[in-house]
Amino acid sequence: MAENLLKGKVGIITGALDENSIAWKTALKAHEQGARFVLTNAPIAMRMGAIKELAEHCKTIVIPADATSLEDIEKLYAEAKEYLGGNFDFLLHSIGMSPNIRKGRSYGDLNYDWMNKSFDVSAISFHKMMHVAEKMDIMNEWGSIMGLSYIAAQRVYPFYTDMADAKALLESIARGYGYRFGKMKKVRVNTISQSPTKTTAGTGIGGFDAFFNFADKMSPLGNAPAEACADYIITMFSDLTRYVTMQNLFHDGGYSTTGISEELMDQFKDL
Amino acid sequence: MAENLLKGKVGIITGALDENSIAWKTALKAHEQGARFVLTNAPIAMRMGAIKELAEHCKTIVIPADATSLEDIEKLYAEAKEYLGGNFDFLLHSIGMSPNIRKGRSYGDLNYDWMNKSFDVSAISFHKMMHVAEKMDIMNEWGSIMGLSYIAAQRVYPFYTDMADAKALLESIARGYGYRFGKMKKVRVNTISQSPTKTTAGTGIGGFDAFFNFADKMSPLGNAPAEACADYIITMFSDLTRYVTMQNLFHDGGYSTTGISEELMDQFKDL
Amino acid sequence: MAENLLKGKVGIITGALDENSIAWKTALKAHEQGARFVLTNAPIAMRMGAIKELAEHCKTIVIPADATSLEDIEKLYAEAKEYLGGNFDFLLHSIGMSPNIRKGRSYGDLNYDWMNKSFDVSAISFHKMMHVAEKMDIMNEWGSIMGLSYIAAQRVYPFYTDMADAKALLESIARGYGYRFGKMKKVRVNTISQSPTKTTAGTGIGGFDAFFNFADKMSPLGNAPAEACADYIITMFSDLTRYVTMQNLFHDGGYSTTGISEELMDQFKDL
Amino acid sequence: MAENLLKGKVGIITGALDENSIAWKTALKAHEQGARFVLTNAPIAMRMGAIKELAEHCKTIVIPADATSLEDIEKLYAEAKEYLGGNFDFLLHSIGMSPNIRKGRSYGDLNYDWMNKSFDVSAISFHKMMHVAEKMDIMNEWGSIMGLSYIAAQRVYPFYTDMADAKALLESIARGYGYRFGKMKKVRVNTISQSPTKTTAGTGIGGFDAFFNFADKMSPLGNAPAEACADYIITMFSDLTRYVTMQNLFHDGGYSTTGISEELMDQFKDL
Repeated sequence: MAENLLKGKVGIITGALDENSIAWKTALKAHEQGARFVLTNAPIAMRMGAIKELAEHCKTIVIPADATSLEDIEKLYAEAKEYLGGNFDFLLHSIGMSPNIRKGRSYGDLNYDWMNKSFDVSAISFHKMMHVAEKMDIMNEWGSIMGLSYIAAQRVYPFYTDMADAKALLESIARGYGYRFGKMKKVRVNTISQSPTKTTAGTGIGGFDAFFNFADKMSPLGNAPAEACADYIITMFSDLTRYVTMQNLFHDGGYSTTGISEELMDQFKDL
Repeated sequence: MAENLLKGKVGIITGALDENSIAWKTALKAHEQGARFVLTNAPIAMRMGAIKELAEHCKTIVIPADATSLEDIEKLYAEAKEYLGGNFDFLLHSIGMSPNIRKGRSYGDLNYDWMNKSFDVSAISFHKMMHVAEKMDIMNEWGSIMGLSYIAAQRVYPFYTDMADAKALLESIARGYGYRFGKMKKVRVNTISQSPTKTTAGTGIGGFDAFFNFADKMSPLGNAPAEACADYIITMFSDLTRYVTMQNLFHDGGYSTTGISEELMDQFKDL
Repeated sequence: MAENLLKGKVGIITGALDENSIAWKTALKAHEQGARFVLTNAPIAMRMGAIKELAEHCKTIVIPADATSLEDIEKLYAEAKEYLGGNFDFLLHSIGMSPNIRKGRSYGDLNYDWMNKSFDVSAISFHKMMHVAEKMDIMNEWGSIMGLSYIAAQRVYPFYTDMADAKALLESIARGYGYRFGKMKKVRVNTISQSPTKTTAGTGIGGFDAFFNFADKMSPLGNAPAEACADYIITMFSDLTRYVTMQNLFHDGGYSTTGISEELMDQFKDL
Repeated sequence: MAENLLKGKVGIITGALDENSIAWKTALKAHEQGARFVLTNAPIAMRMGAIKELAEHCKTIVIPADATSLEDIEKLYAEAKEYLGGNFDFLLHSIGMSPNIRKGRSYGDLNYDWMNKSFDVSAISFHKMMHVAEKMDIMNEWGSIMGLSYIAAQRVYPFYTDMADAKALLESIARGYGYRFGKMKKVRVNTISQSPTKTTAGTGIGGFDAFFNFADKMSPLGNAPAEACADYIITMFSDLTRYVTMQNLFHDGGYSTTGISEELMDQFKDL
């Protein structure tokens, strides 16, 4: 394995809920590769015991912050800058939540206040994190900002309801702010569209197992595991990908460009 | 010109502000093609004198309704059904507004309440119109629902700020509800991604003229005029396009798939 | 049904093999809508008895021509112009054939001469038809040229082997020549990406039935039938779609933007 | 800079013509990162003096091979395997040539034999390289195969004529064989869609400078340099991107998702 791909780089990692989280695995890998960073999560979502352990392993601290609050983000950045001793090279946005999914509302029966909540938590918070970063001029040149998306932004997965819209919004924000941050500071902004992943968030969605298996059989390489996603994020934070920006990058074992697999064909013959 | 492409069809047309509006021209064409429909607009946006004239020409009525209000939509549908004597075959959503653009806020300086307002007016209202249509079971089988989008949903136009995100949301909602309405009632849902158009809404955007000319020079056929867009909408409401659904259809004279035109190349040689 | 949507328009329809063909149904519809046209097919593919019947019904003639031969195309155009009394408003390219599929060669074991043949027959012939049309200046302004494609141009269907590459090529040629013909004569060029269709060509592909059923269950409206495709082509030949160009238009009941349907989810739960 | 990202990996690099070539820079970087590889180029394109120097620097050999010849590829692989002492982890296809561009033929006046030549050299050779790799079972599990593409595969650049079609074909082949190689050996296949680059091949295209400047002004980060492309290829050959497959990856400083830049807007105001 490569050493020190992120040597000297500092940043912020959000959304490390537990050891199944993509953000958790990213923290481990980023640490391995020489990065220094601060962990953060919403006070309401945080399992303090778990994330403290991760912080210790990564020799860092946890700063709770609600990413929908401009004030919290400002405070987070100020304290993180203080702790890390400088501006940031990378930000990972790994935050998503839909009250409509949690409460089992179908797409034809959404609660619109909850829809706004889904958008605010899962997408607009990405804009807010970049907005505050711009205002505080806290990103170093050639920095890298990443969000996590899902192919529901392009195609319909009925069980994913308003999170599909939130992901479409997230990807649009990545483009819009990516243009702006590119011009200002050579900072790139991208999203990774990840295979269905057995995280705590993922498995909370109804029908997740059936769909996970379907996607796994569709993808020539199988579903991409969370750990591989963390590896991919590391490359996107490294200096080797400086000119990739405003892209949505599929990390899915080939799912997105496979129309049908032989395995699915075989199963369909028998139905 | 064909006659009676929409004979016997009834529906709702939103957003006919004045004679430059795509919705206005669609109303004229739909009337020509034998459709019966009700006109509606937000009380706040409506220029009563103008739209009354259109209504008279089309032998119909105007029912003011705020498309962000579920109650208003219910009332609109109930009264329209009463007036038209039956359920609907088509709905045109042609509604968009961004307070951030109006107030000249850049993408790095958005007011988030206004962003929510942009989304609610320009995109979530589309969901609400379909949600109420489902609840009241007011669409006929094989009906057609259309929204109007713009390529800013895919690429960045800095002056378009949060309307780009609103359009990405609108297109996502078209897919999400298109799936649902297809399954339920064979109703199709699509968006048309239209060239920059000299409507009252369009020309309110800063730098519009420069961009209008740029797009016109990029497009092999030139920018698509509003009237041609109305023609295209007519085909999408007709029975000749029943299996087109969950699509975003570029109506742009070839702009979206042109990388550069010879005309622009020539101009660039001299710079 | 509308009348006379193509009144006064003249053109060429290729590929009407038998009554299951999309081109066959397009000929019937175009005739109904007032168009006049000449039918053509490759001498080798033509079932003279059948197509003569169609020609009689449409009050026209059949001119055999091999669309891979510039000379044949020239002769076809010259004779058709003579017969129709003027230049053309529309061309339908509905030609495709892969010796590799016919002989059951997998994608890992293609015969490269046959691959060239697949490309020449299925895609380059589209370029040749436009090339000769340009040279003879035989298209009227605002004319419309269509090809038939399949989503294998974007996603992998293993059984479709080199026809996937041929379709990617066809769509690229539609863009490339669409730009050119738009600039020259305001002529638009598009492809329709059609659902799997039970034509004679389609059903010759191994595993077709399994895939047809899979796609049908995936699509909210079900697979689009050949007849609906013919309707859609009529709209694209009409004056109502003048500014749509260089596009690949999905006519697939929503298949392309559906990630998974509830019906498929249910089947997967049990596997 | 990271060290040893490709430690222990062996492969083949085609297309290193001179020090401006992306392949040349990739060879330097791959060597730096610990990879061992063989260089190859078409006998006809090879400037023996230059490439020998590169080979010496990278402590390797040059094996001339025409990538359109199955026999040459077989010989290349056999000798490279012998020299490197094992099967391959990566292949770089960086080969493209259009006689039609060289001879200044416009898209409306292509020589079809030359078009076939363009496709054979620039795209089908990619299939052939994978076909022979499969037949000789010469790829290691989790290997990575890359081709170089250009956004002309999606949008029209009139000066690029049949190379646009060749690139569309190349990307289709990457998907088609990516599916197959993924299933067989967990090998991934991708293309990078690179900014216009001042290579010897690039600058041979008429109007290149005007377009290079246009793209540079459009892209928020400016055009991606060849060296950065080489960096990106390194990440794609590393184990950190194992689940990315069948993708076309834009490496373009944000060009592909920018509709217009402020810089271009300003220039257009004055025109």
